[in-house]
Amino acid sequence: MPLHTDRGYESQLGQLRAHLLEMGGLVEDQIAQAIRCLTERDRALAGVTIERDHTVNRLDVEIDDLSLKLLALHQPAARDLRLITTALKITTDLERIGDLATHIAERAVELASEPPFTPCVDIPAMASLASSMVHRSLDAFVREDVELALGVCSSDDEIDKLHAELFRNLLTIMGKDPRSISSTMRQLFISKYLERIGDHATNIAEMVIFMVKGRSIRHLDTVPREL
Amino acid sequence: MPLHTDRGYESQLGQLRAHLLEMGGLVEDQIAQAIRCLTERDRALAGVTIERDHTVNRLDVEIDDLSLKLLALHQPAARDLRLITTALKITTDLERIGDLATHIAERAVELASEPPFTPCVDIPAMASLASSMVHRSLDAFVREDVELALGVCSSDDEIDKLHAELFRNLLTIMGKDPRSISSTMRQLFISKYLERIGDHATNIAEMVIFMVKGRSIRHLDTVPREL
Repeated sequence: MPLHTDRGYESQLGQLRAHLLEMGGLVEDQIAQAIRCLTERDRALAGVTIERDHTVNRLDVEIDDLSLKLLALHQPAARDLRLITTALKITTDLERIGDLATHIAERAVELASEPPFTPCVDIPAMASLASSMVHRSLDAFVREDVELALGVCSSDDEIDKLHAELFRNLLTIMGKDPRSISSTMRQLFISKYLERIGDHATNIAEMVIFMVKGRSIRHLDTVPREL
Repeated sequence: MPLHTDRGYESQLGQLRAHLLEMGGLVEDQIAQAIRCLTERDRALAGVTIERDHTVNRLDVEIDDLSLKLLALHQPAARDLRLITTALKITTDLERIGDLATHIAERAVELASEPPFTPCVDIPAMASLASSMVHRSLDAFVREDVELALGVCSSDDEIDKLHAELFRNLLTIMGKDPRSISSTMRQLFISKYLERIGDHATNIAEMVIFMVKGRSIRHLDTVPREL
């Protein structure tokens, strides 16, 4: 029996998928909490978001270790090899998403120390979209579902558009009322963080397509995705 | 003779290192060009930077392919396994650095269309530091040099400080002269991009330390590195 079909191997592969989903669930929670922290001016909640980042970081290291163990002990081939190396790359993106959620919470705490202001209505909508992109990209990974992954790539255009609109609106507000610069800038950063979360989810989706199809769709367009 | 000591294998490992250094050299050039494009208001140069990003993206795909081939055909163990999986992860960071250099060039083109302004003197200094961090992180990878990698991590604090200072200064300028908001914002973005290039170089350095030492120093502090 080849090494890579034994029961320990299959169970470790299952563990790898489960760890990635757990990490994904955690960063989704982090995004939701950070936005609640913004809309409800709840500084205590920011502490929870930032604290949760330690668990995300622990999972990042655990998944890397597990992937290396799988590669070293079982020498998987073809599709499994692509699955494990994709997992190795996905953790980098998930870890950055966790960092970005933490930065949103940090900006929300700063905003809560300033006089009350009307938060930009588009931010929670952008956050929902970003969070759903993360969720769908990991679902696509676990199910090896190319269609689902392609859907995430389309959502990226949508979130980029939302960010561009918000950027223009906030710039106008700043120009009209220089006293609002500080709070407006922070909202602008939050919008940028959400747009980058969308980019990371898109990276994951593109890697899933490569994993399933065995060929890369990255870099097929000339338009950079980041502002 | 074990598979992983044959000549083809060693030469492919050498090729992997060479490709990564080539990719690193290209993104360093991109950073330098993007900054010249800013200081000299030279829009044509921006085109070269953006064009060069295609070569960076091609190398990204080639390195991934080569890494997968090495893993599949030679089933390397221990140190070599860590080297190859580190290469797989480093390309993600290098590719993002290339994107960020492109964004700097894009902002520089927009700034060149606006009335002349005094560019912030700190930006070229930040760019040199960011570029040197990229260079040293890849040197550390090729030489498997932990000390060099630790030096990159220290430089990250320096670039973060430069960005924070520049951020405060530009915010003050905006508050005093709302007409400058548009050009000041673009300089602020450039500073942020450079700070993120520093973050990516630091990620590479941390992965090199893991590769050599076999243990992770990531996530040992609680302070997120991004703004």
